[in-house]
Amino acid sequence: MIILGIDPGTRRIGYGVVEYAGGKISFIDAGLLKIESVNDPEALRETKKQMDNVFKKFSPSVLSIEKLYFMKNQKTAIQVAQARGVVISAATEYGLEIREFAPNEIKLGITGYGFADKKGVLKMVRLILNKPELDIIDDASDALAAAIVACKRRIAET
Amino acid sequence: MIILGIDPGTRRIGYGVVEYAGGKISFIDAGLLKIESVNDPEALRETKKQMDNVFKKFSPSVLSIEKLYFMKNQKTAIQVAQARGVVISAATEYGLEIREFAPNEIKLGITGYGFADKKGVLKMVRLILNKPELDIIDDASDALAAAIVACKRRIAET
Repeated sequence: MIILGIDPGTRRIGYGVVEYAGGKISFIDAGLLKIESVNDPEALRETKKQMDNVFKKFSPSVLSIEKLYFMKNQKTAIQVAQARGVVISAATEYGLEIREFAPNEIKLGITGYGFADKKGVLKMVRLILNKPELDIIDDASDALAAAIVACKRRIAET
Repeated sequence: MIILGIDPGTRRIGYGVVEYAGGKISFIDAGLLKIESVNDPEALRETKKQMDNVFKKFSPSVLSIEKLYFMKNQKTAIQVAQARGVVISAATEYGLEIREFAPNEIKLGITGYGFADKKGVLKMVRLILNKPELDIIDDASDALAAAIVACKRRIAET
């Protein structure tokens, strides 16, 4: 089972891919999809295209994504929500199961503490995936964390 | 030239279609696309599917859509923005030109007054399209108004 975590943004989308097989969660890939367009419709078109590539490349069966809550900057919130809508709609087209988690649920699921900082999350992601050398930026680390939490949830349910 | 106006929402999407030909703007269709799912990912999947149908049915070359601003209810704002992202991304896939207008720009373009009410907008939509009997709900009327304003803008530019 391949699980894709996505941390959506307007200029950059973090992604993290893990596999659950043989009772083990393993690291597949993580990184950043950059959206070059500053123009709204073009940026959304690019988002869709980049997500299509990710779905084709990794063939995940689950998408894990953070729930979106209040943001101070309403303009940014609207833009992130638009991108998030495109990501989720695209994932349903590829038949993925969608799992949504609150930011605190992800932190709690990874570190055991709902208010852990970015550094703490990355440390535990490295430990869980047995990748001590993993050097990735926050967006990719958050996406991996989302993927791991969805994976754990699936394991617990079955 | 076929122009599609969309008034995006979470449970209902207003649409309006006009044609510009022979120096005249004519009414083609208007109505409401109902989204049955209350579940987020399912609703976004439905939104994409319904938009695909509209693009195939009317083959518009322009999408006209209201800009999204501050909303009191942040949860609703996020959901509407997600749906709006899906609509715009889908339109770019079909090669449509996207035109975005502020709500006041649309009211001004239709009635000559930026703070016109829904009733005033519908009255002028009927007059412009020469359809005195047109009986449609607000969402469809707003979508038609958006389509007309995009059409007028295009005419003025050429």
